Amino acid sequence: MPVLVMKFGGTSVATLDRIRRAAKRVGVEVAKGYDVIVIVSAMSGETNKLVGYVNETSPLFDAREYDAVVSSGENVTAGLMALTLQEMDIPARSWQGWQVPVKTTSAHSSARIEDIPTDNINRKFGEGMKVAVVAGFQGVSPEGRITTLGRGGSDTTAVAFAAAFAAERCDIYTDVDGVYTTDPRICDKARKLDRIAFEEMLELASLGAKVLQTRSVELAMRYKVKLRVLSSFEEQSDDAGTLVCAEEDIMESNVVAGVAYSRDEAKMTLVSVADRPGIAAAIFTPLSEVGVNVDMIVQNISDEGRTDMTFSCPTDQVRRAEKAMVDAKARGDINFHDIVADTDVAKVSVVGIGMRSHTGVAAKMFRVLAKEGINIRVITTSEIKISVLIDRKYMELAVQALHDAFELEKAS
Amino acid sequence: MPVLVMKFGGTSVATLDRIRRAAKRVGVEVAKGYDVIVIVSAMSGETNKLVGYVNETSPLFDAREYDAVVSSGENVTAGLMALTLQEMDIPARSWQGWQVPVKTTSAHSSARIEDIPTDNINRKFGEGMKVAVVAGFQGVSPEGRITTLGRGGSDTTAVAFAAAFAAERCDIYTDVDGVYTTDPRICDKARKLDRIAFEEMLELASLGAKVLQTRSVELAMRYKVKLRVLSSFEEQSDDAGTLVCAEEDIMESNVVAGVAYSRDEAKMTLVSVADRPGIAAAIFTPLSEVGVNVDMIVQNISDEGRTDMTFSCPTDQVRRAEKAMVDAKARGDINFHDIVADTDVAKVSVVGIGMRSHTGVAAKMFRVLAKEGINIRVITTSEIKISVLIDRKYMELAVQALHDAFELEKAS
Repeated sequence: MPVLVMKFGGTSVATLDRIRRAAKRVGVEVAKGYDVIVIVSAMSGETNKLVGYVNETSPLFDAREYDAVVSSGENVTAGLMALTLQEMDIPARSWQGWQVPVKTTSAHSSARIEDIPTDNINRKFGEGMKVAVVAGFQGVSPEGRITTLGRGGSDTTAVAFAAAFAAERCDIYTDVDGVYTTDPRICDKARKLDRIAFEEMLELASLGAKVLQTRSVELAMRYKVKLRVLSSFEEQSDDAGTLVCAEEDIMESNVVAGVAYSRDEAKMTLVSVADRPGIAAAIFTPLSEVGVNVDMIVQNISDEGRTDMTFSCPTDQVRRAEKAMVDAKARGDINFHDIVADTDVAKVSVVGIGMRSHTGVAAKMFRVLAKEGINIRVITTSEIKISVLIDRKYMELAVQALHDAFELEKAS
Repeated sequence: MPVLVMKFGGTSVATLDRIRRAAKRVGVEVAKGYDVIVIVSAMSGETNKLVGYVNETSPLFDAREYDAVVSSGENVTAGLMALTLQEMDIPARSWQGWQVPVKTTSAHSSARIEDIPTDNINRKFGEGMKVAVVAGFQGVSPEGRITTLGRGGSDTTAVAFAAAFAAERCDIYTDVDGVYTTDPRICDKARKLDRIAFEEMLELASLGAKVLQTRSVELAMRYKVKLRVLSSFEEQSDDAGTLVCAEEDIMESNVVAGVAYSRDEAKMTLVSVADRPGIAAAIFTPLSEVGVNVDMIVQNISDEGRTDMTFSCPTDQVRRAEKAMVDAKARGDINFHDIVADTDVAKVSVVGIGMRSHTGVAAKMFRVLAKEGINIRVITTSEIKISVLIDRKYMELAVQALHDAFELEKAS
């Protein structure tokens, strides 16, 4: 039997009614003759509640205990989905990460999947089971402890299962009906894309367009998994949603595919750092050791042997970053006068594989922002994207102005 | 190091503040030099919420999926308790049932513990860990699926760990400060007992005095585990609460130790059953096969070859019992005119090991109820208890009248 992977996010399983609705979609695919692997998230709100408990209990928590706590929401949904399918007379059972087992690294709360043995689930398919419901987001470490893959990790679980089982396709059911040129909630001209290249999706995902988790797109690209994003709230045809695929499968595309933003970025500045060879390493090594994901970095021009070093990181890692810097200073590894965190910023980016062959995109972006009176704090670029950090109050304005300027409301 | 088992029920870990309070109690015992095994329930309300989800999804649920869902609440508390202890600089980690592993039978939703290997946890104690926090109520079947031990199963988990680790004592922290002669909420003369015999506690537990789960008392009796029930909401001395112990450890006791009641009992009557040899077996075998816990049984005097058969079972098993009876009738195994379920009843019992050597307790009980005008529907007796099924509306009156008549407010 061909295998299909279907992943349902938190809003798609937020209530028992929605779980039933999702189960019906699964039933449609089973009726077509697929063996289906369903990956479920926690009911929406659950994971946030659990994360809240952990943070309140222990701000600098033991990530092993964090994982044991926050992974429980997916277990609930997996069992309920299996029961719902059974009620529809579809043979189904649930699997928690350790039961498959989804083998991961020991990097708790941001573990990577290393192996998914297929024999347990395939044996059950052989015995007549039609649907394996797997709790997303979680796995088990070599030490036998529960791990989680980081926020949005259920997408990664889904793609990893699609790769392991050589699935025909991996359908990601979510609360939006596809990938848009930008967030329709803040720009009403946003347009749904029929197809988008892996590379573009990767940038959009990493830049905060929360449709798919970055690593899931990386994995899909590496293992050539056909990935489809579609809505669990609409009746679906076979070509609904947005297909995330290889660049060569897209005939024509705009220079800029989309505009992304992120509110979850904080700007941190080390004021008056002694500027000497190796100072960057002395700053960023301890940050990486405590798991701070540094994104943008800017070093000011040195003045009398001292400089300001600015970087951005997720807002929920600010405390951790501050502690790492203060500790490094106490050890004498670095020297600075002050550390300033600014969480009142946002990152806005334009993304498109067409930028590889078209020049002038950056210049146009800066002109558009300047015309709106928006000051750029930090800039960073890649082959196919340009990102700027700006004051958060200008974020929506910036997205709308850029969407207009690059005419994203028009299909190519 | 001597080992102490401390179990905290749902109300004792209902909020993060209460978890902190419980953790402080654990810290007191750690300071005395104990290696502590903490068994936790789900935060109160959580398990009921999950059971509600399952029942709504699938009234005749697959118990394997039920277990996968409802066991998740304990995992959350275990992680949070470990984090709280770590914040107090007490080395601690959490263990889910499958991680220990708590090996159980495959009887899902009412599994029995078969073995608790001690090597994993003892190795950690050897490495300096002071507290092992274990998720109560759950285990793992020989097939590697999650099992649960039935409601209140965390008590059983606690006693089983106390037996396996040869613990000095098993302290059950709950929302009451000990075992009472009856429920103080419905009888203000209820008196706390300093000690109670295992056998009495066993009857009280099985009769609905929800302080301890029946099987936990059975286990404690078999393995001679010193079991103490005490409040997590009061400052505790070393002799607080009620000690559940062997009969010979109690110097003097009243003939009747306590009055118990249960609202969760339903009366079912099979009307006009063909009365023939083997009819009882034909009725109660299918009930036991679907897991209905029949408690009291009364067979009316036969009239023209037909009789009424009345039995009681937990109210939440009524649907299951009805289906089993209708199926047995359809198979031609039994024959009856009608099946009537009455959930508007309650069971009231008097319990005491002194009844073994004193006569007249039953007669006195019936006189007291008659004087209050309370009709007795069904009677059942054992060596140390007498139970009656009465209309639920008379339950509180019956308990108060019996408490008075047997002078339970006075210590022996």
